[in-house]
Amino acid sequence: MVQIDRYHANPLITPEDVTPIIPGCEVVGVFNAATAVFEEEIILILRVAESAIVSERGQIVAPVYDPAVRDVVFVRLNADDVRYDFSDPRVIRARESSTSSFLTSISYLRLARSQDGHHFTVEDRAFLFPHNELDAYGIEDPRCSKVGDQYYIAYTAVSRLGASVGLASTQDFTNAVRHGIIFPPENKDVVLFPEMINGRYYAIHRPVPSGIGAPEMWIAESRDLIHWGNHRFLLGLRRNFWDCKRIGAGAVPIRTPDGWLEIYHAVDERDRYCLGAVLLDLHDPSAVLARTDRPILIPEEQYETSGFFSNVVFSCGAVVVNDRLRIYYGAADDSMACMELRMQEVLNELRAVVA
Amino acid sequence: MVQIDRYHANPLITPEDVTPIIPGCEVVGVFNAATAVFEEEIILILRVAESAIVSERGQIVAPVYDPAVRDVVFVRLNADDVRYDFSDPRVIRARESSTSSFLTSISYLRLARSQDGHHFTVEDRAFLFPHNELDAYGIEDPRCSKVGDQYYIAYTAVSRLGASVGLASTQDFTNAVRHGIIFPPENKDVVLFPEMINGRYYAIHRPVPSGIGAPEMWIAESRDLIHWGNHRFLLGLRRNFWDCKRIGAGAVPIRTPDGWLEIYHAVDERDRYCLGAVLLDLHDPSAVLARTDRPILIPEEQYETSGFFSNVVFSCGAVVVNDRLRIYYGAADDSMACMELRMQEVLNELRAVVA
Repeated sequence: MVQIDRYHANPLITPEDVTPIIPGCEVVGVFNAATAVFEEEIILILRVAESAIVSERGQIVAPVYDPAVRDVVFVRLNADDVRYDFSDPRVIRARESSTSSFLTSISYLRLARSQDGHHFTVEDRAFLFPHNELDAYGIEDPRCSKVGDQYYIAYTAVSRLGASVGLASTQDFTNAVRHGIIFPPENKDVVLFPEMINGRYYAIHRPVPSGIGAPEMWIAESRDLIHWGNHRFLLGLRRNFWDCKRIGAGAVPIRTPDGWLEIYHAVDERDRYCLGAVLLDLHDPSAVLARTDRPILIPEEQYETSGFFSNVVFSCGAVVVNDRLRIYYGAADDSMACMELRMQEVLNELRAVVA
Repeated sequence: MVQIDRYHANPLITPEDVTPIIPGCEVVGVFNAATAVFEEEIILILRVAESAIVSERGQIVAPVYDPAVRDVVFVRLNADDVRYDFSDPRVIRARESSTSSFLTSISYLRLARSQDGHHFTVEDRAFLFPHNELDAYGIEDPRCSKVGDQYYIAYTAVSRLGASVGLASTQDFTNAVRHGIIFPPENKDVVLFPEMINGRYYAIHRPVPSGIGAPEMWIAESRDLIHWGNHRFLLGLRRNFWDCKRIGAGAVPIRTPDGWLEIYHAVDERDRYCLGAVLLDLHDPSAVLARTDRPILIPEEQYETSGFFSNVVFSCGAVVVNDRLRIYYGAADDSMACMELRMQEVLNELRAVVA
């Protein structure tokens, strides 16, 4: 069993620490942040979710970016509208395909900077905000990979057309360049490997087929990080395990002597999100070497078990600090937290599986 | 209204015209063929579907390619197995996500050649057969684009992991080279534009998101036809129209003076598949210029309204013959048929929509 050390003053950042930037909204979540080390600072690329402040009883309001007016507009629904299922706190699900679904909040990316990795200053403006019809419902769950002198940020772009994966890059964490949608819907949880392997870039992604198939992990190849092909199946669900319902990549893969270490998340039968690890071949990351039988991190602390969506630990980034891995993670779709573990212990746990 | 002339001796090819190549199977469908003009012949790249000949009553058999034994094996299920929904003649749907769905037949590609475009000789061997875990349930619905001296064939690869899109190429219609999966699940109905446009290749594809979103047409870009990016939304469903339930590209886009002419299929509320047309900008095929309000072809003849899956006309290829467009199409997921129309009439119909 891997010993994990949660930071004693978790959570690191909560919605109360972040001022809203959308008029008429409040911050309901600051979570699932990508990580980057830049100019001796640790940067969290936060997913900030804002919801409309609703004054009228029985009204449900969906904030949506409208490219025509270049601003967030509010779609107002009655809580007793039978066309929708309001039971999920995150999604307003249309009961028929001819009606559009909505989200209860709109997410965008915002930076927080830290010298020590624990105390963060949150910027007062967005770093990447919805800008067209493909991200009109929000920009979510970023992962940041440093490739050469560029930081590439893969994120979920959500709209009425589905959840797809967008790519942006930055050199200075001031200006970002958008590279469009790299994986069409439905797809999420994309991590780009931080270097070429045998002349190719690789990405892990998580398509969600509508008919045959399940929410599982695939791997794809690219020559330029923008155009992707040779999609192959990578890692599937395991019945009666902690990763039986849906799985997806978490932190950007970390090179170790034993292989690429990937911290991934999975959902179990009770809709609980845990973190585990998988080891991929250094020279062929489509080859799975080992996988933890048990989760590494389970929601147990109060800030993990209770929040906007309870019983969630969900990582989009980690940093190596000497012989330890510091995993930043969203807790209960609400706040940011972090924990550390000894890298060697994870690798030992994985080695035991192989043996 | 566009006048359509069905070939007087439709259907062109029926299952009775095709000998099975899988031991223990019979041909249940020969349909949805791609077209190519090669060495003064018209080639149909047929989708041939074979099903197990079942001798035991109450047994449902799914043929599946098993890469381990490099052969088709038979999965035998009882018709009263409550874990499955057997109501769709095409799919054995698992009622729970932890159980695999199956298809009732396995499809592969097979060539038919003709001098006159109406009388075809079907080859007695497969041209492209399932070969790994990603196409183990079959290879379906090919589209063939001639780019330079290469013929590229995009097809649906189906397996327990979902329906994705594979790419193969040939120069001689004898040997095919596989290029892997170019669009991950769930995706189908991919047509590659036959030439570069402003230095980029384009493909129309049809993702099917599981959550938010609908089965609609998207467009993507490539530099090499193998790696794809910059996915954008292209064409959506229209409520209360003939294309209200699902739509997808049909024949490979045809260059006309007015724009790229794309014959597409759509499904209406009663699960009827019809054909219509959309016109895309010559210099920017992501721009929709016009779209037929009414279908061009509706299932009306007996071979279209009754078959393996009734009320289907579905095109994967067309050829221009002088001033006429000859559209080859699958009828009722069963047989191949063709019809012709005057190109100018379709363009006039589309022009009327724009005006």
